[in-house]
Amino acid sequence: MSKGRVCLAYSGGLDTSTILKWLINEGYTVVCFLANVGQKEEWDAVEKKALAIGAERMVILDLERELVEQLVWPAIQCNAIYEDRYLLGTSLARPVIARAQVRVAIEHNCDFVSHGCTGKGNDGVRFELAFKACNPSLKIIAPWRLPEFCARFQGRQQLLDFAATEGIPVSSTKAKPWSIDENIVHSSYEAGILEDPNTTPPKDLWNLTRDPQEAPDKPQHFTLFFDKGVPAKLIVGEEVITDSVALFKRLNLIGFENGVGRIDIVENRFIGVKSRGCYDTPGLTIARQAHIDLESLVMDGKVRELRDQFCTFTWSRLLYNGMYFSPEREFVENAMLFSQKNVTGEVRMMAYKGNVYVQGRKSDASNLYSAEEASMDSLEGFSPMDTTGFIEIQSIRLKKYGDQKIKDGKPLTES
Amino acid sequence: MSKGRVCLAYSGGLDTSTILKWLINEGYTVVCFLANVGQKEEWDAVEKKALAIGAERMVILDLERELVEQLVWPAIQCNAIYEDRYLLGTSLARPVIARAQVRVAIEHNCDFVSHGCTGKGNDGVRFELAFKACNPSLKIIAPWRLPEFCARFQGRQQLLDFAATEGIPVSSTKAKPWSIDENIVHSSYEAGILEDPNTTPPKDLWNLTRDPQEAPDKPQHFTLFFDKGVPAKLIVGEEVITDSVALFKRLNLIGFENGVGRIDIVENRFIGVKSRGCYDTPGLTIARQAHIDLESLVMDGKVRELRDQFCTFTWSRLLYNGMYFSPEREFVENAMLFSQKNVTGEVRMMAYKGNVYVQGRKSDASNLYSAEEASMDSLEGFSPMDTTGFIEIQSIRLKKYGDQKIKDGKPLTES
Amino acid sequence: MSKGRVCLAYSGGLDTSTILKWLINEGYTVVCFLANVGQKEEWDAVEKKALAIGAERMVILDLERELVEQLVWPAIQCNAIYEDRYLLGTSLARPVIARAQVRVAIEHNCDFVSHGCTGKGNDGVRFELAFKACNPSLKIIAPWRLPEFCARFQGRQQLLDFAATEGIPVSSTKAKPWSIDENIVHSSYEAGILEDPNTTPPKDLWNLTRDPQEAPDKPQHFTLFFDKGVPAKLIVGEEVITDSVALFKRLNLIGFENGVGRIDIVENRFIGVKSRGCYDTPGLTIARQAHIDLESLVMDGKVRELRDQFCTFTWSRLLYNGMYFSPEREFVENAMLFSQKNVTGEVRMMAYKGNVYVQGRKSDASNLYSAEEASMDSLEGFSPMDTTGFIEIQSIRLKKYGDQKIKDGKPLTES
Amino acid sequence: MSKGRVCLAYSGGLDTSTILKWLINEGYTVVCFLANVGQKEEWDAVEKKALAIGAERMVILDLERELVEQLVWPAIQCNAIYEDRYLLGTSLARPVIARAQVRVAIEHNCDFVSHGCTGKGNDGVRFELAFKACNPSLKIIAPWRLPEFCARFQGRQQLLDFAATEGIPVSSTKAKPWSIDENIVHSSYEAGILEDPNTTPPKDLWNLTRDPQEAPDKPQHFTLFFDKGVPAKLIVGEEVITDSVALFKRLNLIGFENGVGRIDIVENRFIGVKSRGCYDTPGLTIARQAHIDLESLVMDGKVRELRDQFCTFTWSRLLYNGMYFSPEREFVENAMLFSQKNVTGEVRMMAYKGNVYVQGRKSDASNLYSAEEASMDSLEGFSPMDTTGFIEIQSIRLKKYGDQKIKDGKPLTES
Repeated sequence: MSKGRVCLAYSGGLDTSTILKWLINEGYTVVCFLANVGQKEEWDAVEKKALAIGAERMVILDLERELVEQLVWPAIQCNAIYEDRYLLGTSLARPVIARAQVRVAIEHNCDFVSHGCTGKGNDGVRFELAFKACNPSLKIIAPWRLPEFCARFQGRQQLLDFAATEGIPVSSTKAKPWSIDENIVHSSYEAGILEDPNTTPPKDLWNLTRDPQEAPDKPQHFTLFFDKGVPAKLIVGEEVITDSVALFKRLNLIGFENGVGRIDIVENRFIGVKSRGCYDTPGLTIARQAHIDLESLVMDGKVRELRDQFCTFTWSRLLYNGMYFSPEREFVENAMLFSQKNVTGEVRMMAYKGNVYVQGRKSDASNLYSAEEASMDSLEGFSPMDTTGFIEIQSIRLKKYGDQKIKDGKPLTES
Repeated sequence: MSKGRVCLAYSGGLDTSTILKWLINEGYTVVCFLANVGQKEEWDAVEKKALAIGAERMVILDLERELVEQLVWPAIQCNAIYEDRYLLGTSLARPVIARAQVRVAIEHNCDFVSHGCTGKGNDGVRFELAFKACNPSLKIIAPWRLPEFCARFQGRQQLLDFAATEGIPVSSTKAKPWSIDENIVHSSYEAGILEDPNTTPPKDLWNLTRDPQEAPDKPQHFTLFFDKGVPAKLIVGEEVITDSVALFKRLNLIGFENGVGRIDIVENRFIGVKSRGCYDTPGLTIARQAHIDLESLVMDGKVRELRDQFCTFTWSRLLYNGMYFSPEREFVENAMLFSQKNVTGEVRMMAYKGNVYVQGRKSDASNLYSAEEASMDSLEGFSPMDTTGFIEIQSIRLKKYGDQKIKDGKPLTES
Repeated sequence: MSKGRVCLAYSGGLDTSTILKWLINEGYTVVCFLANVGQKEEWDAVEKKALAIGAERMVILDLERELVEQLVWPAIQCNAIYEDRYLLGTSLARPVIARAQVRVAIEHNCDFVSHGCTGKGNDGVRFELAFKACNPSLKIIAPWRLPEFCARFQGRQQLLDFAATEGIPVSSTKAKPWSIDENIVHSSYEAGILEDPNTTPPKDLWNLTRDPQEAPDKPQHFTLFFDKGVPAKLIVGEEVITDSVALFKRLNLIGFENGVGRIDIVENRFIGVKSRGCYDTPGLTIARQAHIDLESLVMDGKVRELRDQFCTFTWSRLLYNGMYFSPEREFVENAMLFSQKNVTGEVRMMAYKGNVYVQGRKSDASNLYSAEEASMDSLEGFSPMDTTGFIEIQSIRLKKYGDQKIKDGKPLTES
Repeated sequence: MSKGRVCLAYSGGLDTSTILKWLINEGYTVVCFLANVGQKEEWDAVEKKALAIGAERMVILDLERELVEQLVWPAIQCNAIYEDRYLLGTSLARPVIARAQVRVAIEHNCDFVSHGCTGKGNDGVRFELAFKACNPSLKIIAPWRLPEFCARFQGRQQLLDFAATEGIPVSSTKAKPWSIDENIVHSSYEAGILEDPNTTPPKDLWNLTRDPQEAPDKPQHFTLFFDKGVPAKLIVGEEVITDSVALFKRLNLIGFENGVGRIDIVENRFIGVKSRGCYDTPGLTIARQAHIDLESLVMDGKVRELRDQFCTFTWSRLLYNGMYFSPEREFVENAMLFSQKNVTGEVRMMAYKGNVYVQGRKSDASNLYSAEEASMDSLEGFSPMDTTGFIEIQSIRLKKYGDQKIKDGKPLTES
């Protein structure tokens, strides 16, 4: 009798193939699940392999649109960034994948969900927090956190031995000396030789961006239009693109060609360990820059200040920590969306050898920018004497501060 | 009899020359002051002109070192940035200049300080808040905020007429159709044709950075060392530079050659008006990137989180708003400095056609990064079962959230 | 010919009567406006006096409901408080009054609005920011900021002389040696003998609260019900009150009887000056305590944490500074309202001699509190081993911190 | 042979007596440790009992002074409070106790520390995070998180059976139907009948405060002096107290007599569970109110604003979560201490039937409060016209906001 039905996140690789077979050997019936979130994959081969190993079924779902429209667009609206540099490419995909896996589990009457993440990374945490929120009654099997599984498979050799014994086909391609996770947003590279933070990533590491040194000598010009903070239209030469997925992929292509969006960082994982990661995030890097630029034209400065401190910072951290399905993410996202009401307009941009430059911006959605008002040459509707009063009032506290320093024998004039 | 003694910030240009003569005509005795904060200037000619117009004295002070060590270094330690993009080049120089002007005013027994800023920009506010804090008893004459002065000089032609009448020499160089403010940190460009935020800055605008398209085809490699967050040594090929000003200038040169540090933004001025500014900030852009990178290796993640929200954001805003001489800047800077205790180490970098890339980093000052600990392949000192408990505890709230959503008929599995 | 039509905020007192007459003498036609925001007032006498002095019309509007429902309810939902103690009684009334005055001005074709606030307090700022936002084209006459007016009326005696000359009736009641501002939310007391922050307010100062020492010896019990954070029902003995204004007045009465809600503070005015104020705020003090208590039962802890830092703090400060009519208030209030979805339930309370005590609370709106889950005696659905993992993961950083301290020769075991 | 040496936190109660015997039975040698943090205890009886059960040694340390000076004083300086109401009485004692236990463990060559906390509360987390930071190499035995221990002792009856079998004396006093934790700061009450948040705590629950209804009819007056934010002197009638512990105990007595400092709340535990707790915190409630009041007189408003958002909020949360020994607590506390430089002065107070009232305050340490400057009657050194300019500049954004609303057909004049 089956110990129960398991929905396993299955990639076709050595790890999850081992888990699949092990689960079957343990007495479970397994439904495999693979999300298409834009990664390169030989979908048919994965399915064939799963069924060959003994999966009851292999479910592959295309989640690209869901990922772009429900996660990437909010990330752009939010100017999301973690620790000043990471654009959250992996973090954005996890909620979409986990939610779909729970749906598949429910549809196929599974009692368990399972995955191949280890206990030290962010992704196991992200997946499981999402599983538990999406369906608190599903049980989780995380083999890499089970003592018996870890004891049995202590290294790659034991996985290979098991594969040989069990007749699991193993790719003959030599693995890269780092691990990769790719989706429509970015590709990440970590572990292996990258664990020394002083090792420069080799030239052949990057999948989604051309080396800036090999990018075209001619800049690429394009215009990105936003509607309430969401990318709504992209014009590249004669091309006009409005479909969300197509638009984002075209941005990715611009970024790829011109080598835009590589970062190499050390970051603080949720569990408190530092780790080194390299990421190339072509389209999102571009879209985020354009969005920030448009906001500067149309968003009230004080709203922006509050939004930066509250929404951008918090939403990014929540996503990084796997807290997408949480009341606080809902709370913060509601506020962020409110700030986007007037973020409608266009930004002209240029990509060139690793960088993207704003060339100009315009919007009819806001009355906040006024060339005349900003002008130093015009006093239309502005009395310069007002500034005198403004300064006087602002300095009431500061004069006391200066007086106190003089009294204390440490005048501010001393440097 | 003199109406009093005025210390005037004098640049040699048409505006401040007019103010100088006007003050003299009004009956004041004027001591002119010009700060050398790294801008290109014909110092002797300025002095000669001031004295020719009738200044009692022209005082020129070299403040480069003060600016670099007292303002730029803290800005780097703080990762200072305003509204996501502006590195505060002008804002950093203002406190140094204003403080020196107050010193000069005191030394030369002046009752007044004066400057040529208008009422609509940030700089008048920044200067005067600094004047008032540094010496609350000094009085200020801001001609461009005096109704009688504004009424008399309503446009450039009236300034030129006055100059002709009063025998003030006027430069025959045709002015650029934008205004420039330069110091060792950056050059800023605003007003004139830039007031339309959709006008791309012309090629010949930028003074401190070469056009990335004309930058060398060969990347420039170098290593920047920090001691408690302060740039302490720069190695470029055979060159080893440790002097603060020389080091910062060498970074500027790297940035200049490789076109690093150009931005074109709309920003929110302190007085609540939006304005468009372009800035090239070569060395600080590089140093800031390196500093952020080193911090990621050596700073505790939670300290960083608090420092980002509290110090970086607040210090930057205070500087932008001219609040350098304020109790709150002292308060925030004290906290920021405390965070820098272990920010000692080195960052290998590469500049190339508009960008600067981190190539690797190392430090002996902190035990926080451990390759083995981060490694997915090692379980040394780490029990993967702990993560299970961590996730379970973290999900207590989330499971209730999911349950409530199910109860409300809006399960989180719906997308 | 009239210089124009002015809508003057008129209270019937010496100051605004002087202003009324002065405006008429200056050639303006004046429509007087008085808001009923719950203060004690002889409305007919005020109207008679205004017309006698020469106002074209006296408009008195009852704004109590608007104040309670549109400002006080959000303040309660927000747990609003300024500088830890001030419940913003005056700040809440100002937007309602200013908005109504602008409406009256528009309705009666006025070109100007006018008020009797001085230049040093918060209220002039609050009124005018509201006027300018509500109708940017209205002009403002603030006599106490006009040099000619200030020069003419340098003290109370000159106001009395003017009144005598102009035939303005002056109340024979001796003024209190402090100034009072009262509305349905609170009464404020400042200036005069209160300017010395070490002077204890005299027994007869307080209008809206009985001296706790003279309050009943028997506690008053009652139950306050909330619906989405808004007070929806009050049960006091046999009484059941659901009308907003009636409910709030009944809370005021409970507070009055039992001496609840007195504070005596020094605060930081928006313009940067410190001032001393005393306030009694009976009903709002009670409602705020009850609301905080209910939230603790039904609001997710992380949402609460973000809401406290973001909404409570910011909304309160914005209101204090007169920024009710601002995009940032809208932004923050939207977020705050989102947090109130489940704040539905009841709180049993007891008022007694200066204090209000929570006696118990319950709610059906949330699944977050579970007696069994909280219980130390039950392990239902909880594995204590999870906490071990939680602690282990949380301590990863802390162990490194401890190790570093040992290495630095300053072990944490030293006290 | 011994399995090792354990330092056990031993209270003499049934739980820790069981743990002591169980550890001995398991083969450990046990050194018992009890901290005197101000609780009522029969110290000799505890020692006798520990030795009778088989402890190698019983170490009792007086930590009152350490607790008051190193934790309570910073909490007062910080105005520390958790979730608006809880003054952190338990959280403040935990670091002091844990640190001392680690010291005792080291001194007595223990390999393990052990405690009797369960897995669902805050205290186990707080103790262990402190143990791990203070000495990362010590191992921890938490019996209530060990499956075998939990399985064996599933309820009170099994503990009693074990005690009978093993000859452990059990107090014949009937336990209260709630649990108590007391120290010099407060007494806490939770669990048992209190788990229903709608049950009013019975009259006989409170240990450290008299029922306000039974407090004296005559108010108690006293004056508290601060030096850099630390309570430095207390004058009560003729008494003058300057010793830290004596001063704090005298405040506790005032609070006890007058029934000051009772709260009854639901709170969010670190592990994400809500729980209900009642606390009486007499002296700290008083000292915190006085400190807040003095700060309002002497601290710059902007420093206060930043300190409130940054230090008060964060320090409190860190303490609550057991993160005293963390780099972020050090970081935040450093900032907080910087803010206290001028918090020197005195506050006159009155305690009466459950409340404490500020009667006046004064300080020579700051020039920030000026009665004349605050005065509405004086224009000395203040030009009311400045406020006009201040308002104009502040309203630049707001007028655009109002214009936009009019353009959008939703004028702000609508209510």
